[in-house]
Amino acid sequence: MARSTRESILTATAELMRRQGYAAVSIKQIVAASGAPIGSIYHHFPGGKTQIARAALVDSGAAYAQLIPTLMDGHDDLGEAIADAFGAAAATMESTGFANMCPVSTVAGEVADSDESLRTAAAEVFESWVTGAVEFFTRRGVDAGVARDVAISVICALEGAFVMARTMRSTEPLLAAGATIAHRYRGVRLTEGPAVAAAMVKSR
Amino acid sequence: MARSTRESILTATAELMRRQGYAAVSIKQIVAASGAPIGSIYHHFPGGKTQIARAALVDSGAAYAQLIPTLMDGHDDLGEAIADAFGAAAATMESTGFANMCPVSTVAGEVADSDESLRTAAAEVFESWVTGAVEFFTRRGVDAGVARDVAISVICALEGAFVMARTMRSTEPLLAAGATIAHRYRGVRLTEGPAVAAAMVKSR
Repeated sequence: MARSTRESILTATAELMRRQGYAAVSIKQIVAASGAPIGSIYHHFPGGKTQIARAALVDSGAAYAQLIPTLMDGHDDLGEAIADAFGAAAATMESTGFANMCPVSTVAGEVADSDESLRTAAAEVFESWVTGAVEFFTRRGVDAGVARDVAISVICALEGAFVMARTMRSTEPLLAAGATIAHRYRGVRLTEGPAVAAAMVKSR
Repeated sequence: MARSTRESILTATAELMRRQGYAAVSIKQIVAASGAPIGSIYHHFPGGKTQIARAALVDSGAAYAQLIPTLMDGHDDLGEAIADAFGAAAATMESTGFANMCPVSTVAGEVADSDESLRTAAAEVFESWVTGAVEFFTRRGVDAGVARDVAISVICALEGAFVMARTMRSTEPLLAAGATIAHRYRGVRLTEGPAVAAAMVKSR
């Protein structure tokens, strides 16, 4: 019960930040959206809005850490995997009316110069995305140095393209940026994924 | 005098948004930072904070419209021009302690789902950046279709890399993303810039 109240508060806050960013969200909105009484909110998060936002960023970030591996898993060419991932992101954005997919980058932009606690939380999330993507690429046979460059390039381009696409109400930024990065890595082979995928098959 | 008060208000607001985003900025802060009395602020901007922010975004956006042409003007290879532009951005970020360079993308991320008036202002700014870069690239001999893809790819990657670099306090996102996009366009020649550059030389 205690856990589910905490989870409701974090889910509601992440959802509010996804639509409005960090500064515009009020404790009053969190009460209304989570259904948790204000006393319960301060019981779970004595540090108030900053502490809630920090935990919500980490939670949302973890949910997106597997996005790149999931979108790219079926491919054996890195360039095609990248083009496909940006294409899928573009289709999702269009089908949701260009909704923000994740609050982390929006909040990071707001707080990077003004709230050190939230900045470091967002930095940990970004680093976890890079690390997760690097692990996936190297497991699939990509050189470690290249893997980090690919991971960072893809995440930068996705984040920038999400903001432009939402703002311009157009998939063009995602498709154009995706095509440029995909072109760079076309011909780089993704080998069979041994470790995780093979182990999962064996365990069936 | 009226104009300079208006400009002070817009400059102060852009500077506040650059550091804090849009929602966190208050009229009280704008009064303090601009030196303009509150009555004067509402005289110039009867629509209050939204109207001021809208005008400040357009102003800031215009100031950055010539950034890509300026950074890339000395080059005759598109890939090298791109790598150099990202390198210059990385050096600037590092020398400023990873300060936000421009409020447009941060504010766009906050308001794209919640404030249609500010979203359309930010969309116009993004479109003006794309148009300005396309004009520069085509003037320098790049095919029009390619020029739009380059412009969008560079702006997406810069915007995403700025957020990641500010958050992670590292130039790596700018350098990695810049290198990936530069690689795609290495060997694409930028011809002598006829129109503007030549006209400027002749008029001396």
